[in-house]
Amino acid sequence: MSDPIKKVVLAYSGGLDTSVILKWLQTEYGCEVVTFTADLGQGEELEPAREKALLLGIKPENIFIDDLREEFVRDYVFPMMRANALYEGLYLLGTSIARPLIAKRQIEIAALVGADAVSHGATGKGNDQVRFELGYYALNPDIRVIAPWREWDLTSRTKLIEFAEAHQIPISKDKRGEAPFSTDANLLHTSSEGQVLEDPWEEVPDYVYSRTVNPEDAPDQPETITIDFERGDGVAVNGEALSPAALLAKLNDLGRAHGIGRLDLVENRFVGMKSRGMYETPGGTIYAVAHRAIEQLTLDRGAAHLKDELAVRYAELVYNGFWFSPEREMLQAAVDHSQAKVGGTVRLKLYKGQAIVTGRKSPHSLYSEKVVTFEDDQGAYDQRDAAGFIKLNALRLRLLGRRDR
Amino acid sequence: MSDPIKKVVLAYSGGLDTSVILKWLQTEYGCEVVTFTADLGQGEELEPAREKALLLGIKPENIFIDDLREEFVRDYVFPMMRANALYEGLYLLGTSIARPLIAKRQIEIAALVGADAVSHGATGKGNDQVRFELGYYALNPDIRVIAPWREWDLTSRTKLIEFAEAHQIPISKDKRGEAPFSTDANLLHTSSEGQVLEDPWEEVPDYVYSRTVNPEDAPDQPETITIDFERGDGVAVNGEALSPAALLAKLNDLGRAHGIGRLDLVENRFVGMKSRGMYETPGGTIYAVAHRAIEQLTLDRGAAHLKDELAVRYAELVYNGFWFSPEREMLQAAVDHSQAKVGGTVRLKLYKGQAIVTGRKSPHSLYSEKVVTFEDDQGAYDQRDAAGFIKLNALRLRLLGRRDR
Amino acid sequence: MSDPIKKVVLAYSGGLDTSVILKWLQTEYGCEVVTFTADLGQGEELEPAREKALLLGIKPENIFIDDLREEFVRDYVFPMMRANALYEGLYLLGTSIARPLIAKRQIEIAALVGADAVSHGATGKGNDQVRFELGYYALNPDIRVIAPWREWDLTSRTKLIEFAEAHQIPISKDKRGEAPFSTDANLLHTSSEGQVLEDPWEEVPDYVYSRTVNPEDAPDQPETITIDFERGDGVAVNGEALSPAALLAKLNDLGRAHGIGRLDLVENRFVGMKSRGMYETPGGTIYAVAHRAIEQLTLDRGAAHLKDELAVRYAELVYNGFWFSPEREMLQAAVDHSQAKVGGTVRLKLYKGQAIVTGRKSPHSLYSEKVVTFEDDQGAYDQRDAAGFIKLNALRLRLLGRRDR
Amino acid sequence: MSDPIKKVVLAYSGGLDTSVILKWLQTEYGCEVVTFTADLGQGEELEPAREKALLLGIKPENIFIDDLREEFVRDYVFPMMRANALYEGLYLLGTSIARPLIAKRQIEIAALVGADAVSHGATGKGNDQVRFELGYYALNPDIRVIAPWREWDLTSRTKLIEFAEAHQIPISKDKRGEAPFSTDANLLHTSSEGQVLEDPWEEVPDYVYSRTVNPEDAPDQPETITIDFERGDGVAVNGEALSPAALLAKLNDLGRAHGIGRLDLVENRFVGMKSRGMYETPGGTIYAVAHRAIEQLTLDRGAAHLKDELAVRYAELVYNGFWFSPEREMLQAAVDHSQAKVGGTVRLKLYKGQAIVTGRKSPHSLYSEKVVTFEDDQGAYDQRDAAGFIKLNALRLRLLGRRDR
Repeated sequence: MSDPIKKVVLAYSGGLDTSVILKWLQTEYGCEVVTFTADLGQGEELEPAREKALLLGIKPENIFIDDLREEFVRDYVFPMMRANALYEGLYLLGTSIARPLIAKRQIEIAALVGADAVSHGATGKGNDQVRFELGYYALNPDIRVIAPWREWDLTSRTKLIEFAEAHQIPISKDKRGEAPFSTDANLLHTSSEGQVLEDPWEEVPDYVYSRTVNPEDAPDQPETITIDFERGDGVAVNGEALSPAALLAKLNDLGRAHGIGRLDLVENRFVGMKSRGMYETPGGTIYAVAHRAIEQLTLDRGAAHLKDELAVRYAELVYNGFWFSPEREMLQAAVDHSQAKVGGTVRLKLYKGQAIVTGRKSPHSLYSEKVVTFEDDQGAYDQRDAAGFIKLNALRLRLLGRRDR
Repeated sequence: MSDPIKKVVLAYSGGLDTSVILKWLQTEYGCEVVTFTADLGQGEELEPAREKALLLGIKPENIFIDDLREEFVRDYVFPMMRANALYEGLYLLGTSIARPLIAKRQIEIAALVGADAVSHGATGKGNDQVRFELGYYALNPDIRVIAPWREWDLTSRTKLIEFAEAHQIPISKDKRGEAPFSTDANLLHTSSEGQVLEDPWEEVPDYVYSRTVNPEDAPDQPETITIDFERGDGVAVNGEALSPAALLAKLNDLGRAHGIGRLDLVENRFVGMKSRGMYETPGGTIYAVAHRAIEQLTLDRGAAHLKDELAVRYAELVYNGFWFSPEREMLQAAVDHSQAKVGGTVRLKLYKGQAIVTGRKSPHSLYSEKVVTFEDDQGAYDQRDAAGFIKLNALRLRLLGRRDR
Repeated sequence: MSDPIKKVVLAYSGGLDTSVILKWLQTEYGCEVVTFTADLGQGEELEPAREKALLLGIKPENIFIDDLREEFVRDYVFPMMRANALYEGLYLLGTSIARPLIAKRQIEIAALVGADAVSHGATGKGNDQVRFELGYYALNPDIRVIAPWREWDLTSRTKLIEFAEAHQIPISKDKRGEAPFSTDANLLHTSSEGQVLEDPWEEVPDYVYSRTVNPEDAPDQPETITIDFERGDGVAVNGEALSPAALLAKLNDLGRAHGIGRLDLVENRFVGMKSRGMYETPGGTIYAVAHRAIEQLTLDRGAAHLKDELAVRYAELVYNGFWFSPEREMLQAAVDHSQAKVGGTVRLKLYKGQAIVTGRKSPHSLYSEKVVTFEDDQGAYDQRDAAGFIKLNALRLRLLGRRDR
Repeated sequence: MSDPIKKVVLAYSGGLDTSVILKWLQTEYGCEVVTFTADLGQGEELEPAREKALLLGIKPENIFIDDLREEFVRDYVFPMMRANALYEGLYLLGTSIARPLIAKRQIEIAALVGADAVSHGATGKGNDQVRFELGYYALNPDIRVIAPWREWDLTSRTKLIEFAEAHQIPISKDKRGEAPFSTDANLLHTSSEGQVLEDPWEEVPDYVYSRTVNPEDAPDQPETITIDFERGDGVAVNGEALSPAALLAKLNDLGRAHGIGRLDLVENRFVGMKSRGMYETPGGTIYAVAHRAIEQLTLDRGAAHLKDELAVRYAELVYNGFWFSPEREMLQAAVDHSQAKVGGTVRLKLYKGQAIVTGRKSPHSLYSEKVVTFEDDQGAYDQRDAAGFIKLNALRLRLLGRRDR
């Protein structure tokens, strides 16, 4: 029906699964494979991925390894944080926000190397396949997409291992057995799901956590920090100016030590099922708390409340994979318009799993001690105005009450 | 201009301020005063209020003291919790939700005793005047409202004390000086604001907290509890069936011990200014976390996401005093429709300021291990469906991409 | 893979396409076919459908013909009209609203006759397949669905005709050639799309219209009518009490004569593409105009504005096929709560394509001439209240202005 | 209490009411009066206003007369039209949108002449006082505002006339009696309300209409026109490039001749009451219809549906006077982001009160005949994708159905 695929750009981690995919693409599609490995701050060495790709026969010029950490935080995480996006009220969207960037870079590389297809290692039940592919199609409507997990017959761990062995793919010892859960990591978070987490009544076992200490093991002494914001984005921690990625990394260190940002969640996937996952977002959690705090001081009520309404939709769009959509961009335009004066300093206490705001100040503060004070305000506010305000707000309710009594 | 007021129902706490108001109403308006004192779980004896009212010349039949705790939790707090209402993303609306009930009871008493007016002790800068008065007018459009703080000239503490002394109002020693902050309390929360809290950069002093221990002083051992829900409402703690008010009281005890529910907030008042407050909502915080957790398991995605969008508006309406409004009732109808199957058990770990969900189960669970599993699902879900799902979701983005490249 | 299908309930119009489907189901699936033909007011005789089904070998007890007109208007059209639902600001959802009822009845019949599958004649590019199937699955999660247009290879008119001839399906002469456009009709509307309508720059040809006279040919004299409403629903036209279906039929007659309710629309389908259609909704257009008019008089502002916001979402849900979803039901609960006092009389002038409101009155009117009058209102409204109202509404803008100047 | 006012900028029409205000400000406040008269296309000569001001003793350098028509349409009407704003589903906001511009110019003039106050002639029951004053305060938080209608005792027509006579203010003969209704006009619309319109059951009398012919008297022959759009704004009529104001004026002429844009409305005022008004928006109505039509072709579904949801809020903000608010600006940023490719040509038929779209085309069209066609689409769309799309959209409903059966 369609033309054979000639060259495919694979999102390649260097792990067993994507190595099997790499080989499967070569054998099944008989096409040239280009690997793309991104450093999004997942905390793994990337050079082994290069070596493994070479070992599997990928030409050096077909191996792309990019450090995308700054772009990730600056152009994806921070804009999302400006929106105070929380999926289903709780989830900071750590996996969702990374997928569009990977998709974008794959499409760029495909253009660079003249590839006609892209491929990813996400399964057919999850959200990530949607996020990758909506990104691909939005950025290149004519790209071909290969999603091996939806196509092949390697439907069990055993078959996957057999395929790997048959094709001389090295298998580290700990990958031979079934993993007790699967993870995704980047500078913003680590997610864990599957297997031992599948019963939502069972507590998440301790060994699943990797990015944070158990709050019960965190220091008994709270630690106080400050974060500075400018135009809606974090710019410094404890007074030290930091790049976006460095700032998030710094907060990750702090959050890890104090056991901050663990979340055990049952969520609704875009593909229609509920799943249970565990997220660790140490630095992101601190950041989100602080961003709201500086907004409290510097954002007008009208802007703040509109943002709160838009945030629900924004989070749903990011979760569902619609980062590169006109509606997400429209919401971003609205959000960004509100952030011009969102700057100042937030002081937080980190303690056994919590980031607690203890103070905030700003050169752009809209808080007026003179107006709000219980003491004599010397005419800053005329309390009698409140009578008229209430009377007119009540008018429609009174007319209604008269009718309905 | 208008007829003289004959009889007024005053929301009376028995404290200095409302005692001054009581006397001021008698002298200024020359009208009969009916006092109404509600037990909303604020944790104070109410009989002293009766004695003080008698002392100030109120006839016994004009003194109303009602225990509204069950009605408060059942008909106000729980319905609001069903909506997951959080004002400005954080505040559980503890003061806001009590005002409509007080207003309603005042209007009922006014009808009972044939009063033509009601009065309250809220100041002219705050939200509570609005909440009281919108309630009054909605329930009796023709009632007269007296708001002494907007009318009189007792604009300083000194003048207030002088008036009290001049009218033989007993003044407890600790009320002679300026209070370092002002509070409001009920079964859901205690709020504190003013004076020592007015600089939002200054940390809330320890002595301001009254309902919770400092998390740093909370037990080093976490405590695990369960809450059972039926039709969206809590019905048992640790397996023990409890009435609404008893359940909230039980959670308050637990939350107090573990330092849960403190919130230092800069918020936007309906009257147009920012204020800084400190809230302690120990039981309510635990309850809200648990309610969301049981919803995660039992609420359909469509219902859950719609609720999240409506919750922002709902919270704003409650905060602004529009409890008795058609639009709040419409939202409530939508919310309540969603709660029929929101039942089951949530397990939480209470630890040094946090209520952490560690498990949830339900006879109405929509979570399907069979569908979500990473293992072979025996046909419960066909991964190839995802291809079509993505293709059609991408179609408009591809058409867009083709146009805009 | 799956068990063979034994018995299927087909939504059967008696036309060529569904007759071919009937035969195709018999031959392809070797299963017993049950036909279901609904009278939704499409204005066609249904007995020929029975005869044709018999001719094609359907057993008499397997032929279901139901008059669903009253249920359609009472339980689907009117509830939707209460919400003032307009898809993309203009479309009254005439096709969308009929599909759930057909789906529901098919599932009921399937239960009655013990069928394990249902089938419909909607194509693979349209919205109707989605609406049918979401309805089926919501009402019976285990039902099997056969969508012949997505499965078979009868991809051209010629092949369809050949199949019909090969299977002795009678073909009326006018069906031999390609139809210049395709239609769907029920008591609410007739839609037309395809072929001659596919270029959105070309004006809809006159011969496409079937339910309304050309406004230019409508009477030169306007006709004045009244519609009475109770609890949000129409109950009488020109003072004559009518059942829901009779009322809509009456308005259809009136609308037809005056050329009312034509709409030439380019819309966004749920499946991701834009399409161009022409709708004729004569009675529904008059009804919608009148419903809004009676709401203007009887609905509180808070309720009205909330309804306007919810209406966009409601319309999208109905259009996309989510009638039987928790979120549509939640919105309906909110909408219905608002309609208790939406009653009274609206007077309209019908004239050359327009339904123009010329008056409305109600025993539940919230309009107060006494309050609104330019003349002396004798104290009904104190203009000085407006000063305080404005001052407090302006406060946040002034604080903002002070900061940003 | 406050300092005396030295100089006030009055929004001055030259009519009786604002002339009385002018004199009243001089006598009551003893301050210098600066008059500002704007040409917003209301269709009146402005030079008589200058002469009258001179006659009433205003210094020539204190008389400001500005032609704001282009600014009005370009910076206020068009941005609002981009949002498809309709208050309460029907009203094109013709009065609301003019007030912010007048307020802005008054504040600019106040800065220019060193005035410490501004004043307007809006009454204490209407929306305009709010719109003016929110504009004033947003643009200059420290400005003083004088609203004579809320302050003075000229509460009847008779008293007003007496005051005018006492102060040698010329009174044209037709102003001596009570006007049967009051009006406001600008390039976008004329509104009429009060007196003969106060009973919402009574049809609007013919003599109230001033901007449109009665549709029954409009030409029997329809007239076909085209409007060209670029980046969301109209740029040409019938192929002739026109400035914003000229374009709207041209459409006004066309709309007037064909009786287009009449609206008889009962609406909810921000100050809490219902009022009944009649609006004539001839050109604006045509423009709004055409703008939606070009969006249908060029706007992505996600953008279009988000716009529809935001439009309700946007309209409410404009109606309530919050043009110069962060939240209106945020919504504008979102709307404007969507309009980059909203360009092309719309063809409309104007006929006896209606503007009917008969065609639209665009170089930026997202409509794809190739994809949507009923004919063979040569692989542009794979109908089998729809199966997966439906299956995953149905999944949650099926899980729900399994639980709830």
